[in-house]
Amino acid sequence: MKNAVILGASGYTGAEAVRLIMSHPKLELVGLTGHSKAGQAYGEIYPNYRHLDLPGVVTADEIDWTGVDVAFACLPHGASQETIAGVIDNVETIIDLSADFRLKDPALYEATYGRPHGFHDLLGTAVYGLTEYAREELKDAKLVACPGCYPTCSLLALLPAVDADMIDVTDIVIDAKSGVTGAGRKALASLSFSEVSDGAHAYAVGTHRHAPEIDQMLTYVSGIETEVSFTPHLIPMNRGMIATCYVKLADGVSIDDLRDAYVTRYAGEAFVHVEAPGVVPQTRHIRASNHCRIGIFADRRKGRAIIISVIDNLTKGSSGQALQNYNVIQGWDEMLGLTAQPVFP
Amino acid sequence: MKNAVILGASGYTGAEAVRLIMSHPKLELVGLTGHSKAGQAYGEIYPNYRHLDLPGVVTADEIDWTGVDVAFACLPHGASQETIAGVIDNVETIIDLSADFRLKDPALYEATYGRPHGFHDLLGTAVYGLTEYAREELKDAKLVACPGCYPTCSLLALLPAVDADMIDVTDIVIDAKSGVTGAGRKALASLSFSEVSDGAHAYAVGTHRHAPEIDQMLTYVSGIETEVSFTPHLIPMNRGMIATCYVKLADGVSIDDLRDAYVTRYAGEAFVHVEAPGVVPQTRHIRASNHCRIGIFADRRKGRAIIISVIDNLTKGSSGQALQNYNVIQGWDEMLGLTAQPVFP
Amino acid sequence: MKNAVILGASGYTGAEAVRLIMSHPKLELVGLTGHSKAGQAYGEIYPNYRHLDLPGVVTADEIDWTGVDVAFACLPHGASQETIAGVIDNVETIIDLSADFRLKDPALYEATYGRPHGFHDLLGTAVYGLTEYAREELKDAKLVACPGCYPTCSLLALLPAVDADMIDVTDIVIDAKSGVTGAGRKALASLSFSEVSDGAHAYAVGTHRHAPEIDQMLTYVSGIETEVSFTPHLIPMNRGMIATCYVKLADGVSIDDLRDAYVTRYAGEAFVHVEAPGVVPQTRHIRASNHCRIGIFADRRKGRAIIISVIDNLTKGSSGQALQNYNVIQGWDEMLGLTAQPVFP
Amino acid sequence: MKNAVILGASGYTGAEAVRLIMSHPKLELVGLTGHSKAGQAYGEIYPNYRHLDLPGVVTADEIDWTGVDVAFACLPHGASQETIAGVIDNVETIIDLSADFRLKDPALYEATYGRPHGFHDLLGTAVYGLTEYAREELKDAKLVACPGCYPTCSLLALLPAVDADMIDVTDIVIDAKSGVTGAGRKALASLSFSEVSDGAHAYAVGTHRHAPEIDQMLTYVSGIETEVSFTPHLIPMNRGMIATCYVKLADGVSIDDLRDAYVTRYAGEAFVHVEAPGVVPQTRHIRASNHCRIGIFADRRKGRAIIISVIDNLTKGSSGQALQNYNVIQGWDEMLGLTAQPVFP
Repeated sequence: MKNAVILGASGYTGAEAVRLIMSHPKLELVGLTGHSKAGQAYGEIYPNYRHLDLPGVVTADEIDWTGVDVAFACLPHGASQETIAGVIDNVETIIDLSADFRLKDPALYEATYGRPHGFHDLLGTAVYGLTEYAREELKDAKLVACPGCYPTCSLLALLPAVDADMIDVTDIVIDAKSGVTGAGRKALASLSFSEVSDGAHAYAVGTHRHAPEIDQMLTYVSGIETEVSFTPHLIPMNRGMIATCYVKLADGVSIDDLRDAYVTRYAGEAFVHVEAPGVVPQTRHIRASNHCRIGIFADRRKGRAIIISVIDNLTKGSSGQALQNYNVIQGWDEMLGLTAQPVFP
Repeated sequence: MKNAVILGASGYTGAEAVRLIMSHPKLELVGLTGHSKAGQAYGEIYPNYRHLDLPGVVTADEIDWTGVDVAFACLPHGASQETIAGVIDNVETIIDLSADFRLKDPALYEATYGRPHGFHDLLGTAVYGLTEYAREELKDAKLVACPGCYPTCSLLALLPAVDADMIDVTDIVIDAKSGVTGAGRKALASLSFSEVSDGAHAYAVGTHRHAPEIDQMLTYVSGIETEVSFTPHLIPMNRGMIATCYVKLADGVSIDDLRDAYVTRYAGEAFVHVEAPGVVPQTRHIRASNHCRIGIFADRRKGRAIIISVIDNLTKGSSGQALQNYNVIQGWDEMLGLTAQPVFP
Repeated sequence: MKNAVILGASGYTGAEAVRLIMSHPKLELVGLTGHSKAGQAYGEIYPNYRHLDLPGVVTADEIDWTGVDVAFACLPHGASQETIAGVIDNVETIIDLSADFRLKDPALYEATYGRPHGFHDLLGTAVYGLTEYAREELKDAKLVACPGCYPTCSLLALLPAVDADMIDVTDIVIDAKSGVTGAGRKALASLSFSEVSDGAHAYAVGTHRHAPEIDQMLTYVSGIETEVSFTPHLIPMNRGMIATCYVKLADGVSIDDLRDAYVTRYAGEAFVHVEAPGVVPQTRHIRASNHCRIGIFADRRKGRAIIISVIDNLTKGSSGQALQNYNVIQGWDEMLGLTAQPVFP
Repeated sequence: MKNAVILGASGYTGAEAVRLIMSHPKLELVGLTGHSKAGQAYGEIYPNYRHLDLPGVVTADEIDWTGVDVAFACLPHGASQETIAGVIDNVETIIDLSADFRLKDPALYEATYGRPHGFHDLLGTAVYGLTEYAREELKDAKLVACPGCYPTCSLLALLPAVDADMIDVTDIVIDAKSGVTGAGRKALASLSFSEVSDGAHAYAVGTHRHAPEIDQMLTYVSGIETEVSFTPHLIPMNRGMIATCYVKLADGVSIDDLRDAYVTRYAGEAFVHVEAPGVVPQTRHIRASNHCRIGIFADRRKGRAIIISVIDNLTKGSSGQALQNYNVIQGWDEMLGLTAQPVFP
């Protein structure tokens, strides 16, 4: 058994981490922190947990770190690095769900997030935790930077092709769609039911902060400086994310070749599944689970393909992958705490 | 370990039974039956399970009952009694989720469901499985009739008061609201997204088949011939059910007395929770779980109370309670297979 | 042509008033006021109107009242009475959509809204504008208090029976369901899509402020001091409201008698429609229109009935009825500006 | 006044045509046809119209064409050409909302729709009614083929750039999202609320029938054989459609140049609006209206742009554009019958 603390438990990724940890046979939840919510019972903040005997919400300063093995940091970027720097010596492992340790280049971090990165040394040690592509580095990781939801969804869809030089990395369009929980638990009229339901729209067109994160990994794997077209859309659903990726196949690569590469690459994976030819993945079929489903299709434009992946933004896109990463670090079965089936309907 | 078969696995209650059984540590799913879907892989019917190695769907006749311990019957009423009568000798236990064995009086069954009941003997042996009120009878049960979703939600809200003679059983109004999964997986334009979303309506006003089932139990517990007002409404949500019950308090009974009775009655229950004063239960906070939450309020009309309960119609209202009943029969912890936390948001 | 100003145009009832006035052949919109939004173009606040050439939003003080005939006040209660008192001498007519002039008794207002009423004289002159029951008084009205959405829906369902002494006014249960726009345009996490969608719940159980307003009218019409049971529920839909009313029939009154009374009472009405026997009204079928539909059903409890009415809370429940009232005052066809058909699907 | 008949009034485009025609000052609805629904009152099929005195539904054969000026054909493809060929001599004008007369090349029609086109002569006379690009041809049109919803949304977004040679027509990706009404009023489990809500998915990836229609127009305008990448997605909303178009700018063309071209092209249009820089159009802001909103953005990949347009699939994407076309044919104000403001929220 390992003892876990959730830093920043009042947001949706914190609540999702609680949900998953409560089903994890080797993790015990021993602390929950919050800033404005400190002093409250967690069941007041998330009434779905009122029947549980959970630790009360305290400030990060109030946590007694004795015996704590791991912290899951579900804090806003900026706050996350500050807090992590302050507590990292108290624990074996920190799994950060914020953006603070994802971008390797501090200058890119500053350009993207509008503030300098204050902890370059820590940044250098962080492992980018796209689990299926990070197992080796994870083994010795102390600090894990969990990928953003859009990068997780997009990279799982693109990396097998990029890794096998099967597509042109300079000609990638990612059109993404996210459920509303991706925006967090915020008191904004623009996120209210009346303004979000029964409609859809793009946002942060050409400027979303997850795009440089996608670029970074594609560049790293391909060895070619890469920049993707990326447009996220807000969809009136709670959970779920789609990345519809439009790619140009390398000369001589067929759709069957492409699908074979994916089938081979993901053959042993517990959570990543390649659909049979013609089958389109749907977000609702992986709802509330850590699964990712990927469909591969010939484009009607010759020599091109469309790769579609779906995840639950709060699970594989956030807290589920965080837990999966910790399972890898511990050498446990990767599915521990993540075996519950998708909830459909 | 016990081996389970799901009869009629192609509907939503069957799919929910699969979901829960897959998380049950002492149950193995060894068979799935379907009529029109026989011959298909279950993952084709429910793509959320495509990653699992499940038995293929066969007809009930094709099941090899050797080694099968329990059958969960998720069939339509009418078909259910026929099938159960044919297979009951092959298994230790049958948990029926249909309406076929809920009403004790065959004449009432015929009046309500429009067909004669064909198996009066079996009907006599069936235990009405509202778990919290049936543990004694369940111990020796071979055939369990799981209550309907509306009766489950309504009776959990009403029985402590009725049992303690705290309300007038001849003056009960139950206004109920259900998510759309309660209507089953049907190809009907009237259930299509475009006809159901962004609106609400009552249905079966004054005539719903679950009302006699509620009457039966209230009459049994109170000893007074009871008939409730009952109106169900269809709400644009997947899962979830509310029973808003308007009751007249017996002379001298205060709201505090009433709440105390509920707190006492449900004190040891794993799944039934009485809200603190002033707290209103919400369906989304018990989503995809076996929990029931009950709020108790003073009506503005003196001497009256409003009791509100919420459940997930597919879980506590159907397959979750079925599993809970089987746990009781086996003498297992009632929470086996039902420990996953509610999914919110 | 008459010139109209909307006071408090930044909320949903203001936006709905704009929508309807823009389709009114005899009304010109000459002013829009807002407090925090003053200085903005209205199309920035409501992008659905960006293509229109509308007056900019100004504070109430900045309105030039010369030539203004009517003000529609869409302000919060409290603010509304203050503003109206200040401008009523500048216009022929004020149609107030707030709660400030609905309750005739200042003490009841204070008990209900938690503040004293500051304008007893004005209150005495206000006409309660449930149009179908107020045409005579409206003819000479200068100040109209439009009913709340719940009272509109409930009273249209109950008044024909009460007026004809066909039901027991001391035994009425109103279970109501509202779309989320009824909560207004607020920046609250509790109204966010993620917290409201895919679920339902009651609120203000036993304490909602619209109940005394319903009582007042029932008492006035029946001559009997009346108090109703009333529970509102929040439903994950934008627009729409249901009042499901449980009533006890007077001795000798049959369901057919009851329905006949409604058919007769509403025979000439443009907006209130009594459904054929067995037909259940649905909110989506009156969406974005000023229509009300009423279904009348025998309860399964003998001697009782269930009366169900549906309206769009923003139209007949608010701005549509406001316009209808002004049409009556002007002696115009009541349907002016309200002829657009319900939007379904 | 002109007299109109709707052929195939039982589907959603028929119902939308009814809604709009009822608000048209110069059109009278004199006939409604249906196949399986013949003999029913229209208000039984669409309860939102029960309060209207509409013609009963009859078969197309039963229509008396005397005095009928125009037919709006809302039939399925295949059935549409048959019916239209049979009645076209009876009326001045037929506005076809099906796919039957959209593709100029009968071989392409056959390849796309899986059946030979039976009326090549008629096909030769049909005007492709993308109103903003068809006014000249419409003036003398007897038969109008209204564009599909996806082509309408996509072409309004692309044509100004194509027409001005500002983008590379051989490198276009259109990622589209549609509300569920686009699928029609069908009794399919796959369209049921429980299977569609709270999730999203692509469909017909690489194979959707609207893609050749988009190609045809782009090829015609550009003079270059064009094939687009096109992926539609089903979104859990009733109405609304987004086309997110990824394009490569021609050498020397800046984003400002591009936007200027759009502003100029659509300057006099009543229904097509170019958003200010940085503003993203949302479907909910044009709900139930004939408006189209277009946003133009720099892609993060240099030399590329993202053009986003939104329409209501049932209005501008279908019946609204049909009416707009008829207004043009008659020389009426194009907004007749289409002046109602978007319904938001």
